[in-house]
Amino acid sequence: MKSALGLVEACNLIQNKQLTAEEFLEQCVERANQIEPVLKAFTIRATLSTLQQRSGVGPLMGIPVAVKDLIATKDFVTTNGSPIYKDFTPAEDASIVQKVKKLGGVVFGKTVTTEFAWRHAGPTTNPWNSAHTPGGSSSGSAAAVAGGIVPLALGSQTAGSIIRPATFCGIVGFKASFGAVPRVGVHPVSDSLDHIGFLTRSVKDAVYAFNLLRNTATDEDDSIVLPELILSPISEVLGNQKPRIAILQTPFDDLLSDEQKDIMQTATRLLKASGASIEELTLPQTYWDGIEALAVLMACEAAVVHEKHLKQFPELLGADMKELIQKGMAYSASDYIKAKNLQMKLRRGIGEYFQRFDSILTAAATGEAPKGLDFTGNPIFCSLWSFIGTPAIALPVNKSRNGLPLGIQLIGNYKEDEKLVNMAAFAEECFKALGN
Amino acid sequence: MKSALGLVEACNLIQNKQLTAEEFLEQCVERANQIEPVLKAFTIRATLSTLQQRSGVGPLMGIPVAVKDLIATKDFVTTNGSPIYKDFTPAEDASIVQKVKKLGGVVFGKTVTTEFAWRHAGPTTNPWNSAHTPGGSSSGSAAAVAGGIVPLALGSQTAGSIIRPATFCGIVGFKASFGAVPRVGVHPVSDSLDHIGFLTRSVKDAVYAFNLLRNTATDEDDSIVLPELILSPISEVLGNQKPRIAILQTPFDDLLSDEQKDIMQTATRLLKASGASIEELTLPQTYWDGIEALAVLMACEAAVVHEKHLKQFPELLGADMKELIQKGMAYSASDYIKAKNLQMKLRRGIGEYFQRFDSILTAAATGEAPKGLDFTGNPIFCSLWSFIGTPAIALPVNKSRNGLPLGIQLIGNYKEDEKLVNMAAFAEECFKALGN
Repeated sequence: MKSALGLVEACNLIQNKQLTAEEFLEQCVERANQIEPVLKAFTIRATLSTLQQRSGVGPLMGIPVAVKDLIATKDFVTTNGSPIYKDFTPAEDASIVQKVKKLGGVVFGKTVTTEFAWRHAGPTTNPWNSAHTPGGSSSGSAAAVAGGIVPLALGSQTAGSIIRPATFCGIVGFKASFGAVPRVGVHPVSDSLDHIGFLTRSVKDAVYAFNLLRNTATDEDDSIVLPELILSPISEVLGNQKPRIAILQTPFDDLLSDEQKDIMQTATRLLKASGASIEELTLPQTYWDGIEALAVLMACEAAVVHEKHLKQFPELLGADMKELIQKGMAYSASDYIKAKNLQMKLRRGIGEYFQRFDSILTAAATGEAPKGLDFTGNPIFCSLWSFIGTPAIALPVNKSRNGLPLGIQLIGNYKEDEKLVNMAAFAEECFKALGN
Repeated sequence: MKSALGLVEACNLIQNKQLTAEEFLEQCVERANQIEPVLKAFTIRATLSTLQQRSGVGPLMGIPVAVKDLIATKDFVTTNGSPIYKDFTPAEDASIVQKVKKLGGVVFGKTVTTEFAWRHAGPTTNPWNSAHTPGGSSSGSAAAVAGGIVPLALGSQTAGSIIRPATFCGIVGFKASFGAVPRVGVHPVSDSLDHIGFLTRSVKDAVYAFNLLRNTATDEDDSIVLPELILSPISEVLGNQKPRIAILQTPFDDLLSDEQKDIMQTATRLLKASGASIEELTLPQTYWDGIEALAVLMACEAAVVHEKHLKQFPELLGADMKELIQKGMAYSASDYIKAKNLQMKLRRGIGEYFQRFDSILTAAATGEAPKGLDFTGNPIFCSLWSFIGTPAIALPVNKSRNGLPLGIQLIGNYKEDEKLVNMAAFAEECFKALGN
């Protein structure tokens, strides 16, 4: 899998005419034909000739992008992972898909998502071991990139749906600060929490994708506009200060597997060896209350989104979805507003910690990808950062005894995405010492 | 009242040393001493010597600003119009008060607000006839400016609390697009609806105040940052197109007094005579659903804000407040989210109408200020614009047979405040033909 071209690498080769768009697309389709029978990352794919016809001109010329099937595409059925939408083709592409196309990129196909990006899993397998889940809800997006089919996939995260599958599949997952990436045309889980993000095989690739596809001043009103992120040597970014990394202690650390604990110590050791200063960090209980508040926001907002589905197609909704909707319907407006208020409070408050630390390091999952395809894993190590809206990036570190990926995530301050991606590039370089 | 100096006029005289800060402050205090016994615009005022000491250096040097008593001031008790806070002095000034001070301005005193900016009225009287309400909730702010005490007052509007008292008092009231003016340190009524705005005696003065006191990039996160508004001849603003004004038909037009209907026809005639094109506009029912949705947002958010007051000081809350809180507590999260969703939908949707019109003209109130001080008037002609968050400006047009002011408001597109204030300056000039 490691031999597949990365996004920046492929873009450079194509732009410099050392590789044609047609050739690259052909390689990607060949790879897909080879592994898709087991991987099952895609719900639908374009044929090679269609891809070659659709590839445009621009910085993403010849780049096939896998698009989570929660994101509207007018050229493909968009199922949202639900039988309710099994024949639904949107009239318009989601804004981010429009951006991909405008830049010359081409939608390779739609990737499997859990039902409405909630729990009920699809058929995708983990590219490292098909008996294990790839994680979810961006299951197919993570698997397609990790399997070497495409160099870039679009995913979405409401609690842990980019970071966790990226970690389970051993790739990079990046969700920028809340609101920085366009969401118009993406089926909502929860407006207050939904992030669109990128699955790639390196930090550099994630940054490249972000810069091309982020919100700009002409995008939707409720977005934030971040400047282009620039990767530089960490000493320049930090003005020759040591990188200061906080190792977060959480109330759920007893959920971590021994291997996950080991990998975090390994990561810490490698970062230290490269000059980082490391300190443990605990957060006040009010932060951890954010996990429950996230559940309130998600249930309440999902209840409104899915009211019509529950009314019209009760038999086509999974039990997990119904439970979420019914839970959401039972909350009062006060419950909801208090959860929103906490979100805003923590978004402002977290900045305090980023005065003492350049980045927070925490587990992205409890350990390797669980066996079986039904349970996509526990998102609890991602939830707080989805709630607060701080940028997060998943980095692979090593493999488990079972040969499955293990990793960590780094968190940055809200709207300070540039520092985060630079810290991540530094960490990625450190982890290379393990020879993966 | 007309002889009092306007904001820009006073600033210019002081900056050009034709008037000293001390002299101007003395004039203002004298005026206050003269009319306050009947007007009762202020809950508390600084003495002349204190004002003279506190006046700073900057564009607002020597300018006394009246501050609604819902806005935190560390130099004055801030009652929020409630006996619960009768002895409460905040530790910090609200951001907008900090801005006033930084620019050399001085807080003249705190102005009467209804209880927590909701219904229960204070003692302020209308400067044109003390048997009539000045409107609310920014009662004292409107009265202080209309009475010629200060050239600028800060108010807040959740439904109609700037525009309506401005109209009842015959002055200009300006609430910019939602989020454009700092709110930190203002006691909330409803986060989704609260606007801070300006009461002045001319459009030019309102624009001047906005430019100095608006949010900038370093202000709170959930704000929007509008550029400086520039007043220019309307022909330049519109590129030599005729000003296109929509006269809005509302479902509540039968609430308008005959005099109010006449004044709107007079306004229309004057605008037409100055070259404006006038058309009638009706809005789809979904817009008018916004009025009920505003009531939902306000009740739900107020319920959370006032939960502690209801628990700790039930005997100190007015019956109207209690009713609002209890109403808010009864709504479900779904009710609230649907109201929020409608708000966002209309904020995006209203732009369609501003492609056909440069401004919407509508009543600001049902007619002249009602007799008596208990009822501050019906906000229904303002509510929709508070809900959507579009900028609105109240303009006086003429007097009623009772000698009370009558006016209209102009509405602009969300974030297109510059066009609105230019349209308002054009209209203000047209209305001068009446010789007021």
